[in-house]
Amino acid sequence: MENKKKRTTIILFSGDYDKTMAAFIIANGAAAYDHEVTIFATFWGLNAFRKQERISVKKGLLEKMFGRMMPRGAEKLALSKMNFMGAGPQMIKRVMKKHNALTPTELMDMAKEQGVKLIACTMTMDLLGLHKDELIDGLEYAGVAAYLGEAAEGNVNLFI
Amino acid sequence: MENKKKRTTIILFSGDYDKTMAAFIIANGAAAYDHEVTIFATFWGLNAFRKQERISVKKGLLEKMFGRMMPRGAEKLALSKMNFMGAGPQMIKRVMKKHNALTPTELMDMAKEQGVKLIACTMTMDLLGLHKDELIDGLEYAGVAAYLGEAAEGNVNLFI
Amino acid sequence: MENKKKRTTIILFSGDYDKTMAAFIIANGAAAYDHEVTIFATFWGLNAFRKQERISVKKGLLEKMFGRMMPRGAEKLALSKMNFMGAGPQMIKRVMKKHNALTPTELMDMAKEQGVKLIACTMTMDLLGLHKDELIDGLEYAGVAAYLGEAAEGNVNLFI
Repeated sequence: MENKKKRTTIILFSGDYDKTMAAFIIANGAAAYDHEVTIFATFWGLNAFRKQERISVKKGLLEKMFGRMMPRGAEKLALSKMNFMGAGPQMIKRVMKKHNALTPTELMDMAKEQGVKLIACTMTMDLLGLHKDELIDGLEYAGVAAYLGEAAEGNVNLFI
Repeated sequence: MENKKKRTTIILFSGDYDKTMAAFIIANGAAAYDHEVTIFATFWGLNAFRKQERISVKKGLLEKMFGRMMPRGAEKLALSKMNFMGAGPQMIKRVMKKHNALTPTELMDMAKEQGVKLIACTMTMDLLGLHKDELIDGLEYAGVAAYLGEAAEGNVNLFI
Repeated sequence: MENKKKRTTIILFSGDYDKTMAAFIIANGAAAYDHEVTIFATFWGLNAFRKQERISVKKGLLEKMFGRMMPRGAEKLALSKMNFMGAGPQMIKRVMKKHNALTPTELMDMAKEQGVKLIACTMTMDLLGLHKDELIDGLEYAGVAAYLGEAAEGNVNLFI
């Protein structure tokens, strides 16, 4: 393992504001330490990769319902704890601003700049009816096999 | 590490429908890529291994209460997000059927066929009063030491 | 990897009673098997390291609000499932007592005795306004870089 590049992979499953932040803070840290880093967004985690604006795509009824109920983009996500019907994220955003902490969007931009590979799980996209047009730019599209290929070569493999 | 078989271990802690699906999709993928795979079900994760039918076992009052309140089997689990008092799982099941996705029960059967080792955490069984008779067939019974023995030899080690 | 000491790292993110127990049971098990073990407590996970008594520290208003709303110490945490407005933890505590299971506080003491390294995430402390005086003794204070330094050398790396 001495001559090999270190590798960090993160399965981003949860669609929580705080967990998404944690995932990208770890990813950016690992990239800064020269790891090859992959974030594989699946299930609700994919909501962090949705565009903020509403994109009109032809969908079935169920997929339309999921599309409407799920948050569009990282800044709209709820907290995993102390969400208080939406007041929690506002409080967190205020302390983050006060302490000059990076927002999830800024953390994601930094991750892209540092070459972190962002993969959208195609099985989830199919299931929840999410189209490429609805997701942010700069993503790769793949399934669990791609994730396993990366994870099997590394050792810092997290499910968040 | 070159000559050794790859190894994937998953601690299945959460008793969520979606997370259980994710765990078994990863496990089946890893098994297909010839990893040795272990799922160690502990705490609420053990509910995925309960038989669907009610099994009569002699228990203390507290254990009886846990037994009644906890879901019996993977198909009865709630979603970690957007559960909507039970409507969420129905919606998910409908899109899954539409897209021919495998149910948790089918994913578990496939895992067994592929030789994925399913371990029920004996400490949790003791604590929550779950008997072997209440759990599905094909499980091994062990504690955290067994998990660590497997995890220490692998590198794709997830807590779900 | 043969001659190297095994290493287990846990990011303790969730502030749940049951997940905190699971984290420390794994940590103690790994320490017993002679792994070098690190628990890196971040976000709500840091609440497990708060002192039970109220400590008076000068804070801003937002930080004061977080300080009041977040539980003080591991014994005050809620369950991730079946919390039932606080009845769940009481039920769990009763079955734990019945089965002579160790409480989170006892598990943490054992972890310290076994040399498990407990790190409090300084970024979270800054963000949520938690002071060293409010946290239990025996902690180290560091950021994500310290975590990555440890995780990159091990293979049992969990996010709980």
